[in-house]
Amino acid sequence: MDFHIEDVDDLCVGASFLGAGGGGDPYIGGLMVKKVLKKGHRIEIVDPDTLDDGGLIIPTAMMGAPTVLLEKLPSGDEPIRALRAVEAQLGRKADATMPTEVGGINSTIPLYVGARLGIPVIDADGQGRAFPELQMETFAINGVRGTPLGLSDEKGDVATILTEDNHRMEWLARGLTIRMGGTAYFANYPMTGKQVKSTAIKHTLTLARRIGCIIRRSAQDKRNPFEELEAFLPTTSYSVARRIFEGKVVDVDRKTDRGFTLGEVVIREDKKMGEKCCVIFQNENLIARHGEETLALVPDIITIMDAETALPITNETLRYGQRVVVMAVGVPDIMRTESALLQFGPSAFGIEEQFSPLR
Amino acid sequence: MDFHIEDVDDLCVGASFLGAGGGGDPYIGGLMVKKVLKKGHRIEIVDPDTLDDGGLIIPTAMMGAPTVLLEKLPSGDEPIRALRAVEAQLGRKADATMPTEVGGINSTIPLYVGARLGIPVIDADGQGRAFPELQMETFAINGVRGTPLGLSDEKGDVATILTEDNHRMEWLARGLTIRMGGTAYFANYPMTGKQVKSTAIKHTLTLARRIGCIIRRSAQDKRNPFEELEAFLPTTSYSVARRIFEGKVVDVDRKTDRGFTLGEVVIREDKKMGEKCCVIFQNENLIARHGEETLALVPDIITIMDAETALPITNETLRYGQRVVVMAVGVPDIMRTESALLQFGPSAFGIEEQFSPLR
Repeated sequence: MDFHIEDVDDLCVGASFLGAGGGGDPYIGGLMVKKVLKKGHRIEIVDPDTLDDGGLIIPTAMMGAPTVLLEKLPSGDEPIRALRAVEAQLGRKADATMPTEVGGINSTIPLYVGARLGIPVIDADGQGRAFPELQMETFAINGVRGTPLGLSDEKGDVATILTEDNHRMEWLARGLTIRMGGTAYFANYPMTGKQVKSTAIKHTLTLARRIGCIIRRSAQDKRNPFEELEAFLPTTSYSVARRIFEGKVVDVDRKTDRGFTLGEVVIREDKKMGEKCCVIFQNENLIARHGEETLALVPDIITIMDAETALPITNETLRYGQRVVVMAVGVPDIMRTESALLQFGPSAFGIEEQFSPLR
Repeated sequence: MDFHIEDVDDLCVGASFLGAGGGGDPYIGGLMVKKVLKKGHRIEIVDPDTLDDGGLIIPTAMMGAPTVLLEKLPSGDEPIRALRAVEAQLGRKADATMPTEVGGINSTIPLYVGARLGIPVIDADGQGRAFPELQMETFAINGVRGTPLGLSDEKGDVATILTEDNHRMEWLARGLTIRMGGTAYFANYPMTGKQVKSTAIKHTLTLARRIGCIIRRSAQDKRNPFEELEAFLPTTSYSVARRIFEGKVVDVDRKTDRGFTLGEVVIREDKKMGEKCCVIFQNENLIARHGEETLALVPDIITIMDAETALPITNETLRYGQRVVVMAVGVPDIMRTESALLQFGPSAFGIEEQFSPLR
C-alpha cells in the first residue's frame, strides 16, 4: 500500500493524538515527508502479517526533549546515518524500517527514511502511543535486544552503543543526546520479520491516519469529533475512548531537564469553578487527577485536545487560557500485561498509584 | 626491548611525576601489569623510530575522574573491548598499541593491553605528561583524526563515536563516561606508523621509568632526589626542572564535577609563615601562583611531591599537613608551539595568564 501526500496531515494529527501530549510535534516530521514525496520518492507501507520471517527490519526514530525539537531542526540525514551505523554493526542491509513509537514525530521519521532509502515501512510500532524512554517497547518486553543502537545529530556525528541491557541503552543514549544538544536521531531494536510479527503492535500507522481523518471530517461535516472517536476506537485493539475532563488551562509548569520536558498542567472546569484536573507529564502525559480521584493513568493514553477543533495539543504548546477536552484511551491488551506494566506502567515513572485500566 | 616486572614500580612513580597531580593514580594500572606479567605474558616496548610506516597503531587509555578510579576498579577487559571496537570500525587489526598520555595510569594501560593481546607497545605518547581532555594531544595538533573512538566500561557495555571534530569526540565521550559511572576505558587516534613518527612525543615510557628510578635510587643512596631530577631532565627533551615552592599543605578544596576532579590546594611556607602558594587543578595541576606572581603554568608540568621521599602526590590523595615540594618541568618544544598552546595552553583551561615558558 502506498502512502500519499494527502495522508500526511491526517497521520500527523492522529500521531499527535496517540502521542499523549509528547512524542515530539509531528508537524516537522510531516514537512520532511511531504518534501521527499514531492521530490518523487515513494513510500510503501507493508502489513506486518505479510513479512518474510527472515527479513531484517531496523526501526528509526528521534529522541530528546520535544521543546528542543522546535528550535533545532534536523537536516534529514541523521536517521539515515543512524540506520547505516546499525547495518555496519550487523554487516547486513535493512530490508525495511518501522516506527518505534506511533505517537508524535516518530510516526513520520521511518516514512522519511523509507522514502529516502527506497525500503518499505512496516505498519506497526513498539509503543502503540508515545513513551519517553527507549526500553519502553513491546519489543523489549518480548525479549528483543535493543542494541546495536546507532545515534546521530545534525552535525554529522555518529555513535554506536552495544549493551545487553535495554535500560543501559536508554541511559547511555540519553546522555549522548543531551550532549548532542537535546535531540538526536537513532536506529535500534534490529529485528527479523518473525520478531516483528510476534512483538509489535500492529496497524498503528493506519490507526493514526484514521484518527486524523475522523477529526478532519468531523470538522467538515459539523459532527462531534469526540463522539466520533469514542465510537471508533473500541472497534480497534484500543478498548475504550472517553472524555475525562473539560475546561480551561489555568496553569502550566514546564521545564527541560535530564533531556526530557517535565511538568504539569492544571485545567479548571468552566461550570463548577472549584473543580480542577491536574495532568503530570514526562514528555508524555502520565496521570490525570481530579482532587483525590485518578481519572486515567499510564500506559493508557491521556491527550489534551482543543475544545473547538479537537486538534491534539502537545505539552510544549500548552498555554494559559486554552479551552480543552481531556480524552483518555485504553491501550491494547499486549500493553497491559504484568511485564508490560513493569516496563511502562505507573511504577516505571515513579508513580505510586496502581494501574487500573480505563473503563 | 622487553618491559619487566622490576620496571613497573619505577614506571608508576615516573608516570605520577609526569602526571602533574592528575592522570589517575598509576598504582592500579601497575597492579594490572604485574598480574599479567606474572601470568607469563610478555610486554615488548618498541622505539617509534623503528616503526613500519604502514602499520596500524591504536592507542588505549582510561578516562574520567581520578577520584572515581580509586573506588571503581576495572575488570581488565574494558580497554581490550574499546580497542576491538575501533578495529571493527576500521576492518583491520592493530599491529601495536601505545599511550595517549604518559602521565598517570595511562602509561600502564597500553602495557596491559599489549601483554594481553601479544602486540608491542610504542615508547611514545601524545601528551608528554597528563592532560584532562581527549583533544589535548600532539596527534590532534598535527592533524590526526581522533575517531573512531571505542569506549567501554566494567559492565561490558561498548560505545563507538565517529566525528571529524576532536573537541566533539571529547564532549561526547565525556558524557558517556559520566553515565558509565565516572570512569571508562577507550581506544582512539588510530594511526599509521608514519603518523606516530611525525606526531608523537618519543621515548616517554623510558623517560617515566628513568624518573622513577632516579627517585628510588636517591632514597637508597641518601642523595637529594630533587637535585638529581633537576640535573637529569635537561639532558632529555624536557628543557628544565626546578623546585618552585616548599611548605605544608594548609588547605585542599576538591570536588568531582562534570566528570573531572576540580579544585585547588594551598601550601604555606615553613619559614616565612605568610608566604603561600596556590595550585589550581582540573584533574592535573594547571597553574601555581605565589601572591600575584605566576610560578608555573600549563602546559609546563607542576608536580607536588612528598618533601621527604620525593614521591609525587596525586591530587586525590592531597591531605592537610603534608610537607611538600612543588616542582615544575618545562615541556618539549613540540608542546609549546602556537597550535599546541591553543590546544592545551592556559586559554584552553580558561586561564587568563599568557604562557611564559619555565626557565
